[in-house]
Amino acid sequence: MKVGILGATGAVGQKFIRLLQGHPWFEIEALGASERSAGKKYKQAANWIEDVVLPESIKEMTVKNCEPSEFSTVDFVFSGLDSSVAGEIEKAFATAGIPVISNAKNYRQNPTVPLLIPEINPDHTELIKTQNFTKDGSGWIVTNPNCVAVPLSISLKPLHDAFGIDSLILTTMQAVSGAGYPGVASLDILGNVVPYISGEEPKVGPETRKLLGTLEGTDLIRPEFPVQATATRVPTINGHMISATVKLKNTPADIEEVKAAYTNWKNPIANLKLPFAPKELYKLHEEEKYPQPRLHADWENGMQLHLGRLRKAEVFDVSFVAMAHNTIRGAAGGAILNAELLVKKGFLK
Amino acid sequence: MKVGILGATGAVGQKFIRLLQGHPWFEIEALGASERSAGKKYKQAANWIEDVVLPESIKEMTVKNCEPSEFSTVDFVFSGLDSSVAGEIEKAFATAGIPVISNAKNYRQNPTVPLLIPEINPDHTELIKTQNFTKDGSGWIVTNPNCVAVPLSISLKPLHDAFGIDSLILTTMQAVSGAGYPGVASLDILGNVVPYISGEEPKVGPETRKLLGTLEGTDLIRPEFPVQATATRVPTINGHMISATVKLKNTPADIEEVKAAYTNWKNPIANLKLPFAPKELYKLHEEEKYPQPRLHADWENGMQLHLGRLRKAEVFDVSFVAMAHNTIRGAAGGAILNAELLVKKGFLK
Amino acid sequence: MKVGILGATGAVGQKFIRLLQGHPWFEIEALGASERSAGKKYKQAANWIEDVVLPESIKEMTVKNCEPSEFSTVDFVFSGLDSSVAGEIEKAFATAGIPVISNAKNYRQNPTVPLLIPEINPDHTELIKTQNFTKDGSGWIVTNPNCVAVPLSISLKPLHDAFGIDSLILTTMQAVSGAGYPGVASLDILGNVVPYISGEEPKVGPETRKLLGTLEGTDLIRPEFPVQATATRVPTINGHMISATVKLKNTPADIEEVKAAYTNWKNPIANLKLPFAPKELYKLHEEEKYPQPRLHADWENGMQLHLGRLRKAEVFDVSFVAMAHNTIRGAAGGAILNAELLVKKGFLK
Amino acid sequence: MKVGILGATGAVGQKFIRLLQGHPWFEIEALGASERSAGKKYKQAANWIEDVVLPESIKEMTVKNCEPSEFSTVDFVFSGLDSSVAGEIEKAFATAGIPVISNAKNYRQNPTVPLLIPEINPDHTELIKTQNFTKDGSGWIVTNPNCVAVPLSISLKPLHDAFGIDSLILTTMQAVSGAGYPGVASLDILGNVVPYISGEEPKVGPETRKLLGTLEGTDLIRPEFPVQATATRVPTINGHMISATVKLKNTPADIEEVKAAYTNWKNPIANLKLPFAPKELYKLHEEEKYPQPRLHADWENGMQLHLGRLRKAEVFDVSFVAMAHNTIRGAAGGAILNAELLVKKGFLK
Repeated sequence: MKVGILGATGAVGQKFIRLLQGHPWFEIEALGASERSAGKKYKQAANWIEDVVLPESIKEMTVKNCEPSEFSTVDFVFSGLDSSVAGEIEKAFATAGIPVISNAKNYRQNPTVPLLIPEINPDHTELIKTQNFTKDGSGWIVTNPNCVAVPLSISLKPLHDAFGIDSLILTTMQAVSGAGYPGVASLDILGNVVPYISGEEPKVGPETRKLLGTLEGTDLIRPEFPVQATATRVPTINGHMISATVKLKNTPADIEEVKAAYTNWKNPIANLKLPFAPKELYKLHEEEKYPQPRLHADWENGMQLHLGRLRKAEVFDVSFVAMAHNTIRGAAGGAILNAELLVKKGFLK
Repeated sequence: MKVGILGATGAVGQKFIRLLQGHPWFEIEALGASERSAGKKYKQAANWIEDVVLPESIKEMTVKNCEPSEFSTVDFVFSGLDSSVAGEIEKAFATAGIPVISNAKNYRQNPTVPLLIPEINPDHTELIKTQNFTKDGSGWIVTNPNCVAVPLSISLKPLHDAFGIDSLILTTMQAVSGAGYPGVASLDILGNVVPYISGEEPKVGPETRKLLGTLEGTDLIRPEFPVQATATRVPTINGHMISATVKLKNTPADIEEVKAAYTNWKNPIANLKLPFAPKELYKLHEEEKYPQPRLHADWENGMQLHLGRLRKAEVFDVSFVAMAHNTIRGAAGGAILNAELLVKKGFLK
Repeated sequence: MKVGILGATGAVGQKFIRLLQGHPWFEIEALGASERSAGKKYKQAANWIEDVVLPESIKEMTVKNCEPSEFSTVDFVFSGLDSSVAGEIEKAFATAGIPVISNAKNYRQNPTVPLLIPEINPDHTELIKTQNFTKDGSGWIVTNPNCVAVPLSISLKPLHDAFGIDSLILTTMQAVSGAGYPGVASLDILGNVVPYISGEEPKVGPETRKLLGTLEGTDLIRPEFPVQATATRVPTINGHMISATVKLKNTPADIEEVKAAYTNWKNPIANLKLPFAPKELYKLHEEEKYPQPRLHADWENGMQLHLGRLRKAEVFDVSFVAMAHNTIRGAAGGAILNAELLVKKGFLK
Repeated sequence: MKVGILGATGAVGQKFIRLLQGHPWFEIEALGASERSAGKKYKQAANWIEDVVLPESIKEMTVKNCEPSEFSTVDFVFSGLDSSVAGEIEKAFATAGIPVISNAKNYRQNPTVPLLIPEINPDHTELIKTQNFTKDGSGWIVTNPNCVAVPLSISLKPLHDAFGIDSLILTTMQAVSGAGYPGVASLDILGNVVPYISGEEPKVGPETRKLLGTLEGTDLIRPEFPVQATATRVPTINGHMISATVKLKNTPADIEEVKAAYTNWKNPIANLKLPFAPKELYKLHEEEKYPQPRLHADWENGMQLHLGRLRKAEVFDVSFVAMAHNTIRGAAGGAILNAELLVKKGFLK
């Protein structure tokens, strides 16, 4: 399938380009960016910040404006657009009959738009049918969650299924790549911690609850547990760490029962053989010093969820740390996995 | 007064030496360290890691063994000893009639030993009278808390006084200086987060509860609130950051009432004019991006407690971040302030 | 004396404000910045990035436009202006009869403008008399060198005096604070080295040669040695490190003779008791692992020059590393020392 | 072929294990380490610090003592031994008829032992025939150079061939992984530069000259150019950066002629199709900000040599920066490439 990338020169766009090299199903057909870049060759328009070679096939591609008419030959687009422009542009593409697999936040809370993690809520794709960007349903939008909501909701899912989530408190330690480029100033973060990330905390609860919601017909019934999040920035490159303590509706007998919730959990897409799906979704680290962003963020091509320090808590029921690659599992890689699921489900064809 | 320093070549010992330069009351008279160092000049025995000049007066001092007989001319000693040896040595000094102001953990939970922060529990010094290292009461031990319990208990004190603490959940982001030298390997922490610090979490609850305890006669009545702590290491040099969410016994009407608990709080040592006491104990930062270890750890000579992001929580009542210099407020500086209080109270003379 | 600060909200301007607190001779009277800031209170106009408290006396000062008419009550101004605007503004102040002590590069190579380091070329102040911004000589400009040329020329001066410089090759490892704020993106420098700093290398040779020049009447005779510099950025906060290898005109007999050139060197301002002059200009570190930016940049209030690894070279004559605080000795502190010298010499009064 | 790894639990040993996974010719048959580890399963003996999963096939292998009798089933061994023990152990293996491909420094300057980089001096393998560890020539030692000498000599080779090296001055900025684990203390290197690495500088000249030597019969004729090196440590994880300025015997007309020396250079092993050989040995970066350790160290599986900032120098002839992965190209990967060459040449069979 031929794909376009919107916001192709930005940090997320670059990650899409990198990850799609050699993809068995998807081929990059068109790159879109802002007016400033449009008309230039990609190698001139972009300040390539990935730690691999800029692919030869991409270097000479001419960047287009993010207008549907310039993307008429693609089957769908990935959007790495900034939220300041994603609302309008993604709508224009959907309206023009071009499906949008978006990383932007703009439509995440739209009740007709799936906020999708294939392993967690694959059935939410049904919401697509309630969208009316086009009469024939050819254009629609699917989003992936914020880079904290991704590891958090994956971490919570087996607990939610086995015990029910009552409430939770978490602190994040987020990598600088999450802020894009140039993003965080080095004077702010070298040897430092910044205990605040603008706009981050308000997304965590609502996105997590939507992800763990149950579809009844076309109504998404969301669980109501409160979430108290503190988002901080630390001097790591990739991999967001979460430290969470959770109150469950049904208290597990012991920590072994909690671990069993993970090991017994059935991955609903295990049989789909999606190229970007990790073989083992949950890596439960037994060594207390693990997981660590620098050591583990790239495991399973950056698509694995790392859990560690799973233990009974003195307050509430369970404490753990969770870590996943923020720009792969938590952004571009997650979006690609979404597209793969949507192919298998027949929405993309 | 003439003071000795036990463990003088280690990281805490070096901090004692640095901080005591120019102290109006205390003069360094003797330095003690392990057998390996004893007999050498300090400049040869120590790998000076402070970012100021090794004082001339210290350079040529001969390091002694940590034996009371070698410290007969001091009025008291500060102990920066490693816990593996502190138990025996500190006892020997106390038994020999030499008061010990210790940073080690060994006697912190001894019911006769004050775990002391002058602003928080100055009356706990009365416990000294229950010690029986010597018949005449001339030798005794006072300890300061762990470098996390210090900022945590200072942060909680006004809340405890105003509303009562019911329970709390916290995550720490701790600086590498807390592990001493050589301490944390650079390969473990450069661009990384380690979600575990050996032995750290079990100290947090018990020490905080002892600090906030009430003395009834010579009985220390401890509050019973549970504490769930996750201790992590991050690539900062100095300044431990804590992200905490607290359930209070009496729910405050709004966040202003919480802030008022801090601004109205009466500092019990405000009038003592202790040289190491910060002028303003609580710095309440209003900017969401503050406090930060690199910017604020050295304020008020490293003795200030920095609070930020004070806000109502979706779970429990109040969330905040707290930060203080771990090797000054949380170790050597705290011990010096303890000694100053003990002078004013007449225990040291 | 009453002083103004141009570019007061920028990184260098903030450093001027910080360093001038408690200065025995100079008092901050006025702060100037761009139109965007003018009219605001300083605390609102500036994003204070220093690791000390923003002084109370500065917080409420209203920022002015950088126009001489708004600075009529000052005796002189320090300029921390960006070079994009410094040329015009500094000229306007000098023309209006207000002396300018500038950190900007614009007038450094002007033949009538002293490029001044008090310990190195104090007599170059005579050049001021050749300036004709005003008829009565009341307005003039003095500059301090680039933050690499400062430690380099100080390092070379005793060698130049004793042996003559023939040529040199150097590599710098520069701190991120040298790029101002926001300056270097964290994604560019965390765990990384950037082997290029725009515009840096071309300044090193010419500024160093001007600094080491000899005044004959009003002609500055510059030495002609070639300099080959490679400027790199490393993840340090403060303190530029230089690794240099020098060919001398007269080969020293041994390394002891080289060290003697430093220890025997006569500091021409030693008797002036300038407040910002370090007591000991040259710290010769004997331990091979020293100097280090993190440990030594703040010694002597950031005004000391640290030399280390002084040794005979297999190629050329002598190799060494030199390090100094780039935003103090290499910028704002150097400018303040310049002003102090100019007071003593009677240019400022 | 079946291979053993000596020093398998150390940092270099771990890199051998990682890099040999999936190697088309070599299979790990045996792991050797110190007495402390011998007898344990690898997963228990080693503190795995690589950022990939410890391979399943290795986890359960029992670590052996580094004695030839325990390695009777291997065709040869890779040695990642510490130099404190490598001398004796490697000799024992060679004497026992087991070829040793070593990363240790002990035999690098032995006149019968090739110091080998396949692209630079593949003919030096002939020296093996002069070794007499065994009568039948079955046991011998080949070494790879120090992690600075590797990128330096590769950088110099085309210049040496085209113009001749007269002399050079260099400064290195070396990654912490070069010091092994635990290696550099975080307090020494976070936000810091250490201008000295013990034992490093004396290796650079001699190893580079041996590498660029010419074999005449069994005599290795070494060029005689002097090398002045300053080795520093910076807070990077992988990738040693070198800043070098070179005097050539024949001055190139312009920088284009210098670049042509690289682009026209004939790689002597280009046709051998060795699995670990990079497709493009020299990456000449045209962007001045490149190469950078974080972005480029992993290109071509860590086996590429990155050159940047190639320019005419004011002193000498040419300046450049060079960078290569220190523990792959500069250690374990280089050793594997050496083994591959030795297979092709018939020494290993």
